[in-house]
Amino acid sequence: MIIRYERNGKIKHGWMVEEENKVRVIEGDIYKIHSAKPIMTGLELPLEEVTLKAPTAPSKVVCIGVNYRDHAEEMGLELPAEPLMFLKPSTTVVGPGEPIVYPKLTENLHYEGELAVIIKKEAKQVKAKDADDYILGFTCAIDVTARDLQMKDGQWTRGKSFDTFCPLGPAIAAKLDYQNLRIVTRVNGEVRQDSNTNQMVFTVPQLVEAVSAVMTLLPGDVILTGTPPGVGPLQVGDEISVFIEGIGTLSTRVQTEE
Amino acid sequence: MIIRYERNGKIKHGWMVEEENKVRVIEGDIYKIHSAKPIMTGLELPLEEVTLKAPTAPSKVVCIGVNYRDHAEEMGLELPAEPLMFLKPSTTVVGPGEPIVYPKLTENLHYEGELAVIIKKEAKQVKAKDADDYILGFTCAIDVTARDLQMKDGQWTRGKSFDTFCPLGPAIAAKLDYQNLRIVTRVNGEVRQDSNTNQMVFTVPQLVEAVSAVMTLLPGDVILTGTPPGVGPLQVGDEISVFIEGIGTLSTRVQTEE
Repeated sequence: MIIRYERNGKIKHGWMVEEENKVRVIEGDIYKIHSAKPIMTGLELPLEEVTLKAPTAPSKVVCIGVNYRDHAEEMGLELPAEPLMFLKPSTTVVGPGEPIVYPKLTENLHYEGELAVIIKKEAKQVKAKDADDYILGFTCAIDVTARDLQMKDGQWTRGKSFDTFCPLGPAIAAKLDYQNLRIVTRVNGEVRQDSNTNQMVFTVPQLVEAVSAVMTLLPGDVILTGTPPGVGPLQVGDEISVFIEGIGTLSTRVQTEE
Repeated sequence: MIIRYERNGKIKHGWMVEEENKVRVIEGDIYKIHSAKPIMTGLELPLEEVTLKAPTAPSKVVCIGVNYRDHAEEMGLELPAEPLMFLKPSTTVVGPGEPIVYPKLTENLHYEGELAVIIKKEAKQVKAKDADDYILGFTCAIDVTARDLQMKDGQWTRGKSFDTFCPLGPAIAAKLDYQNLRIVTRVNGEVRQDSNTNQMVFTVPQLVEAVSAVMTLLPGDVILTGTPPGVGPLQVGDEISVFIEGIGTLSTRVQTEE
């Protein structure tokens, strides 16, 4: 699985071999080669010698609202006729272990565990049947939301856009049966969301088609595919994790604003 | 005034001296110097030898809804209690003369002429009284909007996010009495919007405070400050211009999607 890591002040991509507790160093820009095979240097590092960063540094994060059938039922919402889009700025993205900061401007911070799609190459007006060619892989995400601001504004942007509101990671998995993955969110070890990506209203290829019909997706850009039922509040000090089958677990915590 | 231009396949910043029809070449990243004085090379080019690009390549464009008193009156809307934010992705940005593409997905494309604020240096939780220190200058913008999609979705993102939906330019003016500037939008030469930035509900410094309280603004990022009354439809073939006192005129046209 592909990771992005920091070591001695430099950020690089690597290939994580979890069972050997190692990282194989990748040189160059993995997005410029436009091929399934990254440039492996042959160098290996122990996993504990690197600091994991968000596995991508996207130009934009495109989010999809109300995209799980069971979440729509829970909320008493109708299934949308078309994918409902909103954006999180790139400044929301943090990596595994980088805390979520609870802003002073909100009193109701919520988690939303989600499957994130990482775009491999420039995608404009891509058809669903061709979408896989434009996907580098998948990782875990939390669409952190200031629910009070989201509801007060009507427009969701402000409540979704605070710095640290998009933890991503730990790694990008490429070969996945992505429409049949268990997804589980835990807060302080307790299961809060437990669903499967087979509950999505619009599939990943349909989302790539719908989003790229509007805006050009750039290498490294992210589509967050919506959240299953069980969203709820976070408090300062909470530990939160999102597990997705075939990818792994993204773990972080909530800390107070300095 | 600062421009960004292309010549012989390279993009650089320059200082436009309109009365002499010249561009003074600037070397280096104007945002890294964090000073009012850019690095002038002494080289000069005739203005007609360069192609103007959007004067900034932002990581994000933060837009403010319903921010002119006279526009709020026209729409019968209450003045918002706080700035209402939404985002346009960086892929919406085009420069002077680059056409607006009329997407096949909409049947009701609208112009919204606006004053754009260009951020000079990283801005996080900046107070209004300090905002001027974080502003490089101002340019003209069009917040192009697929009005039908905006209304259908409720969330404004999709209708605001098509490629080419954020023309910016022609140049960045630094020293302006920015809360007292005439702003005029013309379609095919006819005046459609004619107001003054003194009609803003939230002033530019208040917007910098409100936005930077949520998300970190990066050098080159843009805040669109809302549109005055008189918004309306565009057709393929229309010529559109936005004039702002002290900045100049951004001119472009609408073309069909290929």
